[in-house]
Amino acid sequence: MLVNKLGEFGLIERIKKTIKTDESVVKGIGDDCAVIKLDKYNYGLFTCDMLVESVDFKPQDEPYLIGRKAVAVSMSDIAACGGLPRYCLVSLGIPKDTSVDKIDKIFYGIRSLSRIFKTNIVGGDISSSPVLTIDVSMLGIVEKKRLVLRNGAARGDMIFVTGRLGDSISGRHLKFIPRIKEARFLVENFKVNAMIDISDGFAQDLGHILKESNVGAIIYEDLLPKYRKSTSLESMLYGGEDYELLFTLPIGEAKKLLSSKLSIFTPVGHITHNRFDLRLIDRKCRVKKIPFRGFRHF
Amino acid sequence: MLVNKLGEFGLIERIKKTIKTDESVVKGIGDDCAVIKLDKYNYGLFTCDMLVESVDFKPQDEPYLIGRKAVAVSMSDIAACGGLPRYCLVSLGIPKDTSVDKIDKIFYGIRSLSRIFKTNIVGGDISSSPVLTIDVSMLGIVEKKRLVLRNGAARGDMIFVTGRLGDSISGRHLKFIPRIKEARFLVENFKVNAMIDISDGFAQDLGHILKESNVGAIIYEDLLPKYRKSTSLESMLYGGEDYELLFTLPIGEAKKLLSSKLSIFTPVGHITHNRFDLRLIDRKCRVKKIPFRGFRHF
Repeated sequence: MLVNKLGEFGLIERIKKTIKTDESVVKGIGDDCAVIKLDKYNYGLFTCDMLVESVDFKPQDEPYLIGRKAVAVSMSDIAACGGLPRYCLVSLGIPKDTSVDKIDKIFYGIRSLSRIFKTNIVGGDISSSPVLTIDVSMLGIVEKKRLVLRNGAARGDMIFVTGRLGDSISGRHLKFIPRIKEARFLVENFKVNAMIDISDGFAQDLGHILKESNVGAIIYEDLLPKYRKSTSLESMLYGGEDYELLFTLPIGEAKKLLSSKLSIFTPVGHITHNRFDLRLIDRKCRVKKIPFRGFRHF
Repeated sequence: MLVNKLGEFGLIERIKKTIKTDESVVKGIGDDCAVIKLDKYNYGLFTCDMLVESVDFKPQDEPYLIGRKAVAVSMSDIAACGGLPRYCLVSLGIPKDTSVDKIDKIFYGIRSLSRIFKTNIVGGDISSSPVLTIDVSMLGIVEKKRLVLRNGAARGDMIFVTGRLGDSISGRHLKFIPRIKEARFLVENFKVNAMIDISDGFAQDLGHILKESNVGAIIYEDLLPKYRKSTSLESMLYGGEDYELLFTLPIGEAKKLLSSKLSIFTPVGHITHNRFDLRLIDRKCRVKKIPFRGFRHF
């Protein structure tokens, strides 16, 4: 069988089954970050993301933005667990005819975001490769009591997203600001039950929360925050790379957040019994079952 | 200018100059691992290595051995700093027509070594890529008092290597056992002044120690441990991927190690004033200046 047929998540499930970890690992494969014991008050968050030319960015994209995105996607994973990024390594696979100027610009992008979010670039690796490949691994930190995973969503929770959804792939995916500050505001002030970043599409990533938490959800088309007036429902539900936070709050906490009137957080639905799966209530008040579809590498 | 012209180490130097780190970073870019503050007694060791098909392994190499090597090279970096590997992430770039069976075998290789050295596989990333690419990032631990870097070699130190040198590229580079146990034996029982793993060739990697420590060295052709009877001096000095440890001990410690009669450790020369650079005394007692040459990606 080819990986094409098994699919990305099938492959991850298959790998996950073969792997055991010791008691120092709080959460291994299957969340935005791995969570490891660090000290009395803190956990370590460990994550990596590989960007490949012509898959995650185009050859003609600005090198500055490619570098920026390479760290931003890992920071977004740290944010989704409620933590702060601290250290990163950059592995670069570089075609031999690449200009030094291009590498300078990629690192300019990497440094710019690292500086904003106080993340130390501490090392990496350089290899030759037929296509430009950047893998950033990141180590972050989160207070034990503030860690948020995908598996805590409970019936009755309200579902929120940050920012706006859809049309990211037309350019925004290279320029987004990882929601570190928003995530910290949430975990420092609210009891967040579950959180994920929307990297593979709203429906698919909400699907991860539902599956891990063994619950269902209802969302409302009217509530979904469109990026542009012309943004389609299709693009909001299934478009990849929004890098917004998707999270659930118990109703009391949700009310508190709503009363803060911060326009960055939009309620989009609520968590239900798991037999509901994922349903959308559309403009005409029709209920539709929504597939957990989105971007997949295979 | 193309990266081809600047060269791998020129590129690393160039990147290094632009990067600042905070006081929690004990050692950033430029050693086998990054060293970060962890707690009162321990440092964290953070490293990554990217393997690319047709560069670091052949398409027809056994997938089990490819996976094994992918973790072994990072473990070798942790060993070179005197530490123990603890957690790793695996980023995979996979061509779409790869068989699931091949990925299974790669992970079988990854798991086999991880189990031996008690390293938790805690996550990773999967991307599609035109060539098979594996980037392993690893987090290890070392007691503060046992950390060894490249910069501690002192005049009068004896230089040692583990195992045997040369001819690794014909196959051994896929099967080597990272010298974790030997490194721990050394740092637990001796005062090791400087250490590195030989990944890019003996002369080049000894060059890194000399440069970082601002010293020179004399080595003896007769003492260099050949992998095979037929192994050439060229292959021992400049062949890449031996993954043996190269380290220096003050003379008293060296005597202690020599009296232990452990055949795995071979003395090959000693550290001198930096105006000596690197010199080889050959079979006919002629002194030759040796270039810091070895494997480079560009």
